[in-house]
Amino acid sequence: MSQRWKITVEFNGTSFLGWQRQDHGPSVQGCLEEAVTRFSQEVVTVHAAGRTDSGVHATGMVASFDLEKPVSADKVRDALNFHLKPNPIAVLKAEAVEPDFHARFTCIGRSYLYRITNRRAPLALDAGRSWLISHPLDEKAMHMAAQRLIGRHDFSSFRASLCQAASPVKTLAELTVSRMGEEVRIVARARSFLHHQVRNMVGTLKMVGEGRWDADDVSAALAARDRSAAGQTAPADGLYFTRAYYPGDDFPEPISGGPSAPSSTNG
Amino acid sequence: MSQRWKITVEFNGTSFLGWQRQDHGPSVQGCLEEAVTRFSQEVVTVHAAGRTDSGVHATGMVASFDLEKPVSADKVRDALNFHLKPNPIAVLKAEAVEPDFHARFTCIGRSYLYRITNRRAPLALDAGRSWLISHPLDEKAMHMAAQRLIGRHDFSSFRASLCQAASPVKTLAELTVSRMGEEVRIVARARSFLHHQVRNMVGTLKMVGEGRWDADDVSAALAARDRSAAGQTAPADGLYFTRAYYPGDDFPEPISGGPSAPSSTNG
Repeated sequence: MSQRWKITVEFNGTSFLGWQRQDHGPSVQGCLEEAVTRFSQEVVTVHAAGRTDSGVHATGMVASFDLEKPVSADKVRDALNFHLKPNPIAVLKAEAVEPDFHARFTCIGRSYLYRITNRRAPLALDAGRSWLISHPLDEKAMHMAAQRLIGRHDFSSFRASLCQAASPVKTLAELTVSRMGEEVRIVARARSFLHHQVRNMVGTLKMVGEGRWDADDVSAALAARDRSAAGQTAPADGLYFTRAYYPGDDFPEPISGGPSAPSSTNG
Repeated sequence: MSQRWKITVEFNGTSFLGWQRQDHGPSVQGCLEEAVTRFSQEVVTVHAAGRTDSGVHATGMVASFDLEKPVSADKVRDALNFHLKPNPIAVLKAEAVEPDFHARFTCIGRSYLYRITNRRAPLALDAGRSWLISHPLDEKAMHMAAQRLIGRHDFSSFRASLCQAASPVKTLAELTVSRMGEEVRIVARARSFLHHQVRNMVGTLKMVGEGRWDADDVSAALAARDRSAAGQTAPADGLYFTRAYYPGDDFPEPISGGPSAPSSTNG
């Protein structure tokens, strides 16, 4: 009888085409599936909570797969890490779960972190790991404007043209902007996101941070339901998949992080 | 009349042989001197507050040099950054200073950060930028033991055999150990350090963190004045030069960060 496994994974997305297996280059899924096969001699599909794009990183991606081979959780973690070398992918945790667990389909929430380095000098230590913006950003204005996007809306204005989601309606639970020195951090949390939604929201908030837009412009961009009405797609470098939530995890309802009350209307 | 310049520099040390110019490979000093020449057509020597080893990083190295060419501080910073590409070196700040300023000889204090990632899984995002220790570390015991090294001592037990310092006596102003999740951070501050002193102190504190040594063993290692009496040299990966202090900067006297009073005896 096979056992379903849940793994929590960290990876540096810089050298990958993204999560999803590709014929023409390295992917996180491909590396993980190969590592599973090398240690178990079983051919598996590894499903993830989020299919991140090329260059996007993860500190807490969750994935699942089945194994016939009877092994301990520690062995799954250590054997995968051994066979993943020298790829910049690390299995932080492996847990035996019920057969109805599915990293993607039973996931009830996802969190992302977006890192901006707000300074004039180029990135030396964080090259490929943050978005360099040299114009001084007003992170408080960005945070206030971000609250206009909280709640259930038609997010067509923030949706990549290639997005395969059935509906553009999503419920954004959190979009928090804060500053730590020269770093501006944006935390986004929702049950699920449209393709490029976080990066398109960040590109839009950048307009606010630079003083070119205000919160009303963000509301208008949302209401337009048109990709060309919102800001640029922020680069992949600054984006980190940080957490996937499952039934039993604490995933709070939409919160407003600022004085602007969240809109409860759709779109 | 020439102008003396002070620059504050960030670099990823992984791809360099270290700060100092070398004939057989890339160095931070060599890259900076080349960048200065490219923008000014002047041949200069760039002096640094600390001559870091291969693999050691910096978030706030300070260096100085002279230029005949009359330029603004912004121009020095931007031109150097332009000509430094694609090396992982960034000039954060350039300041015109008095001719008696010298990054090394007028420096009155230096700070380092040492990062340990304390977990079982390998490093994906922080490969080359932190020391992975899988055995659980007791950071409180490490901090208590670290206080035994505060003050003026003969640090021969923590001195690399190649160290060129005239005397093994140094005054350690701060050695603080703290934990943020799976990261154990060690901050070291002194007027100056012996070669490998920080890495040798960190390797010794690791013995304490793992429960193999206690604070008295650290005191005994210090008293032995013999390199073989202390712990291993921690890898360069986790070490960051964070700050150089100059007259006028706030560089406090030795502090004790814990309940163990600092020793005032020498050795």
